Amino acid sequence: LAGCASVPGGDPLPSWNDGPAKKAIVAFVDDVTRDGSPGFVPPAQRIATFDNDGTLWAEQPMYTQFAFMIDQVKAAAPKHPEWANNAVYKALAANDLRGALAGGEKPLLELLVQGNSGMSVDEYDKSVRQWLATARHPVLKRPYVETVYQPQLELLAYLRAKGFKTFIVSGGTMDLMRPWTQATYGIPPEQVVGSSQGIKFDGNGGLMREPSLAFLNDGPGKPVGIYMHIGQRPILAFGNSDGDLQMLQYTVAGPGRSLALLVHHDDAAREFAYDRTSSFGKLDKAWDEAVRRNWVVVSMKNDWKRVFAEPKP
Amino acid sequence: LAGCASVPGGDPLPSWNDGPAKKAIVAFVDDVTRDGSPGFVPPAQRIATFDNDGTLWAEQPMYTQFAFMIDQVKAAAPKHPEWANNAVYKALAANDLRGALAGGEKPLLELLVQGNSGMSVDEYDKSVRQWLATARHPVLKRPYVETVYQPQLELLAYLRAKGFKTFIVSGGTMDLMRPWTQATYGIPPEQVVGSSQGIKFDGNGGLMREPSLAFLNDGPGKPVGIYMHIGQRPILAFGNSDGDLQMLQYTVAGPGRSLALLVHHDDAAREFAYDRTSSFGKLDKAWDEAVRRNWVVVSMKNDWKRVFAEPKP
Ligand SMILES: [Ca+2]
Ligand SMILES: [Ca+2]
Repeated sequence: LAGCASVPGGDPLPSWNDGPAKKAIVAFVDDVTRDGSPGFVPPAQRIATFDNDGTLWAEQPMYTQFAFMIDQVKAAAPKHPEWANNAVYKALAANDLRGALAGGEKPLLELLVQGNSGMSVDEYDKSVRQWLATARHPVLKRPYVETVYQPQLELLAYLRAKGFKTFIVSGGTMDLMRPWTQATYGIPPEQVVGSSQGIKFDGNGGLMREPSLAFLNDGPGKPVGIYMHIGQRPILAFGNSDGDLQMLQYTVAGPGRSLALLVHHDDAAREFAYDRTSSFGKLDKAWDEAVRRNWVVVSMKNDWKRVFAEPKP
Repeated sequence: LAGCASVPGGDPLPSWNDGPAKKAIVAFVDDVTRDGSPGFVPPAQRIATFDNDGTLWAEQPMYTQFAFMIDQVKAAAPKHPEWANNAVYKALAANDLRGALAGGEKPLLELLVQGNSGMSVDEYDKSVRQWLATARHPVLKRPYVETVYQPQLELLAYLRAKGFKTFIVSGGTMDLMRPWTQATYGIPPEQVVGSSQGIKFDGNGGLMREPSLAFLNDGPGKPVGIYMHIGQRPILAFGNSDGDLQMLQYTVAGPGRSLALLVHHDDAAREFAYDRTSSFGKLDKAWDEAVRRNWVVVSMKNDWKRVFAEPKP
């Protein structure tokens, strides 16, 4: 998909309607890349960061990360007889997500982390690839990697053609993204920043997954993750929820020109409609700040001509 | 310097003598890059990782990292009257490194971390740049960035010309490397993996340095750092000490061809001679394993025609 997005000489963003969002993007890119422009930024500093869930691909009715990790927990159950009396596990086994979240997110996360540890990173990588090759989105009825947004594929390719380096900065774990981001987004593994479980050298050339959360790359963790992995402040950042607020604040606090963007999911007909009260991808404080600071709020309904990429032939 | 290393059509490694080390490198690169070769590796998987201290630049009589951090501690002393009674601080103030290490490495590291925190990452970055522009190596009598090894600059450029991505994987902190690795090694900030102090979002668009060590990218931490930052196993890894042992073990445990290399500092005339008993860059267990497993041990004295790059005009 990544290679199909750019049309030499034509409109580089054909799936974007000619509205204020597209105009703001093109004007910004022109200003920071044109020689002699007041906002010119050298190529080495053209860093663009994109949230993943809800910004580059769908996150409803539940983060894909959760869907995968829950399937892993179910598959690991025979090795964990002690889960028989675990209320969260019993709810998951009955496909009752609401029940699994009854005690808050913490007990669910603990079980997910437990069920997704104890194997080598290579074994886990194999599970991710197998799952992605077969699992299908329950509402959109297609493989998960085909729930990516076509307008964003075009934007990523457009930015790279203009000398930007494009990064993912996600609250999801890197393990679940790195196997497919190059083929789908044109973003190589080392440009994927995310949360991570504990990892430990096994003393013999391999790495094992530990039952602990090592880093939560969300909210105030996003600018920290950016500093650790990228080492430069972005000049463009794109998110969709309150978990992106600090990444956007960090981006616009830079010394030169910058652009902060949010996807607003207002398109129940083609995708989903949710914002201030959603349990996944809540957009509330970041929306208020976007209005106050004149950040670009992209309406999926009005700004995107098409939402999803054509399925692969 | 990075741009001066390759001669189109000529010998890409002119500062390497025609010995077994150079032969092993060229044979390996040929095997993994030539179409139809039994060891062929696609470009996206050609990951090469280099330790920094003692592998790409000098680390004697003391890590440059320590020299910088000690100078920062001294500069911060007026803000820390409580250090007046700190034995480690008193030894540092008297330029007595041996005395500062009398109680082991831990109290020294604690003081260094304390004296290198409490400012924004941007302020700290400014200090690094100022220091590197003025400080000089006490023995080699030149700026620290001119203590880099010319044969390694050629090797980095050669690997990149053959489709490799080159990374630094160092026990030193990323903050001290990222300001100069692009200009000197041709390695951009996001391809520098290292140790890190704690970093925290300041709630207002900036990042502050905390008085804690967040990650030690040394020994068994190196393969973990590689997995976190790069997300792929290297096929070539180059180190010089026991702190690189696990990185080399991780590299050669991959499924395809791989190459593990160590610099042996045996050249007191042109640089320094040290190995099994050195306090900085001890080469003992990794050397034994290199002999046992047929890894390439590069003799600085015999394999390198020239050690240092020509100073910039
Ligand atoms: Ca999101
Ligand atoms: Ca070293």
